[in-house]
Amino acid sequence: MTTKTVPTLTLEGARIALAAAEQRAKEIGVPMNIAIVDHATHLLNFARMEGAKFTSINIAIDKAFTAAGHKVPTSVYKENVWPGGPAYGINHTNGGRFNTIGGGLPIVLDGVVVGAIGCSTGTPAQDEDVSTAGKKAVERSFGLKAKL
Amino acid sequence: MTTKTVPTLTLEGARIALAAAEQRAKEIGVPMNIAIVDHATHLLNFARMEGAKFTSINIAIDKAFTAAGHKVPTSVYKENVWPGGPAYGINHTNGGRFNTIGGGLPIVLDGVVVGAIGCSTGTPAQDEDVSTAGKKAVERSFGLKAKL
Amino acid sequence: MTTKTVPTLTLEGARIALAAAEQRAKEIGVPMNIAIVDHATHLLNFARMEGAKFTSINIAIDKAFTAAGHKVPTSVYKENVWPGGPAYGINHTNGGRFNTIGGGLPIVLDGVVVGAIGCSTGTPAQDEDVSTAGKKAVERSFGLKAKL
Amino acid sequence: MTTKTVPTLTLEGARIALAAAEQRAKEIGVPMNIAIVDHATHLLNFARMEGAKFTSINIAIDKAFTAAGHKVPTSVYKENVWPGGPAYGINHTNGGRFNTIGGGLPIVLDGVVVGAIGCSTGTPAQDEDVSTAGKKAVERSFGLKAKL
Repeated sequence: MTTKTVPTLTLEGARIALAAAEQRAKEIGVPMNIAIVDHATHLLNFARMEGAKFTSINIAIDKAFTAAGHKVPTSVYKENVWPGGPAYGINHTNGGRFNTIGGGLPIVLDGVVVGAIGCSTGTPAQDEDVSTAGKKAVERSFGLKAKL
Repeated sequence: MTTKTVPTLTLEGARIALAAAEQRAKEIGVPMNIAIVDHATHLLNFARMEGAKFTSINIAIDKAFTAAGHKVPTSVYKENVWPGGPAYGINHTNGGRFNTIGGGLPIVLDGVVVGAIGCSTGTPAQDEDVSTAGKKAVERSFGLKAKL
Repeated sequence: MTTKTVPTLTLEGARIALAAAEQRAKEIGVPMNIAIVDHATHLLNFARMEGAKFTSINIAIDKAFTAAGHKVPTSVYKENVWPGGPAYGINHTNGGRFNTIGGGLPIVLDGVVVGAIGCSTGTPAQDEDVSTAGKKAVERSFGLKAKL
Repeated sequence: MTTKTVPTLTLEGARIALAAAEQRAKEIGVPMNIAIVDHATHLLNFARMEGAKFTSINIAIDKAFTAAGHKVPTSVYKENVWPGGPAYGINHTNGGRFNTIGGGLPIVLDGVVVGAIGCSTGTPAQDEDVSTAGKKAVERSFGLKAKL
């Protein structure tokens, strides 16, 4: 097999995730930078809500980049990047883009990472809460599609 | 005067520009990366259409950055950045982000630059065509507001 | 609402902050790099006093960048960027410009961040002391204006 | 001789240059970013006038950096950085900071470069005009001092 096909999120899918995340950010009253990338870590969709921080634009994009590339929530690194931890220093890799703060989540179809969402402006817990809403909304859309 | 107020594009305005640019890209059959920034060059909204180039994500964002920061269409540099031109080498400034390829346009309200749009994947002429549709759509929305 | 107006510091305002910070640095006998940015993190005014450190030029500018972008004193990160803290690793974001050392302070008008000041060369406590003098001086000027 | 002393511009000197440049920018009606560095290319003083371009902050600083480091006006490169010219590609050096657009000028005391000024927002000719005013004002101050 010298070539293969890979499943990946589309802009249409990314917009479902972004809309749901934006809705959740409004509910908790924390305006967010919201970024969605495809399976290959490349940006698909982005929005900065009114009041979201300028210095969180980059953080939201890099959380999504990291979650898609390493295929885990960025929050998993919290226990591992400490001095002495197995991943210590990983946040210096990839030109500094590897982000280990909660708020980046893979988007998964049938066990395969097809993209990721990253949010930033709130606390890591708030950012992950908002990313979760986006992730779940688009993953539900996969399920609906599968049933048709 | 130790502070002043400045007008700037909102996410709502950016979405009007993005939707019109996306529509125009479909009409000419060239999928685009479309980026909208505020008056201060910071990203507000971004979408990568299906088929748009991965290596044009960065170009679209940097065209918008340049058009907002220097307050001119990026296409004006074509005659000036050639060897011997007055702006030769300007494309190396700002950490390499200064983009001198057509397709970045300022978004203007009452003569003041409030943001910019940058498109990339087609030829510079196609990119500017699509950016123009976005720019005009959001500028028309300013006019409608002014009339209310 | 497709555009909005935002308040931002002017060069005149930045100079009030810089002069007061410089005066305070002389009082405590620690020459400083002093940087003032606008609401959108862009540099407005900078001075390096005689004896201030070369390698603190960048730090002063990045402290102001961070305080304007994240809208908090850079000293708040002290408790949060330690291993195990919720913001561990945030200092690697934004291309390494996110600064989590005390000495960066937002400049606030009626509850809105309109700019920021960053100082560097002394201890974090000295840097924040000097930034505070600058911040307070320019914020007093807002109050005087409001009273006219 | 294992050590030596080197003449270098002070903040006081830089401020003379900056004030004269700012005055000249007002006369020609083009608001500027104005940067002054010392003999070792390190930033001493900077101001962004109201209306100066965001994307020219970096350019002004890098023009001064280049003029101090290479000890020539940045405009000399115009004829030399063309394809086939002896300095072709030099604008890619120093991490992209080497600027070959007119507007950077060395500040000279008794034949020795003690600093430099860089201006940006106008045309290269306007930028050099404004830088010249700053350069001449501070160099005149050297002469006056010498006569005392």
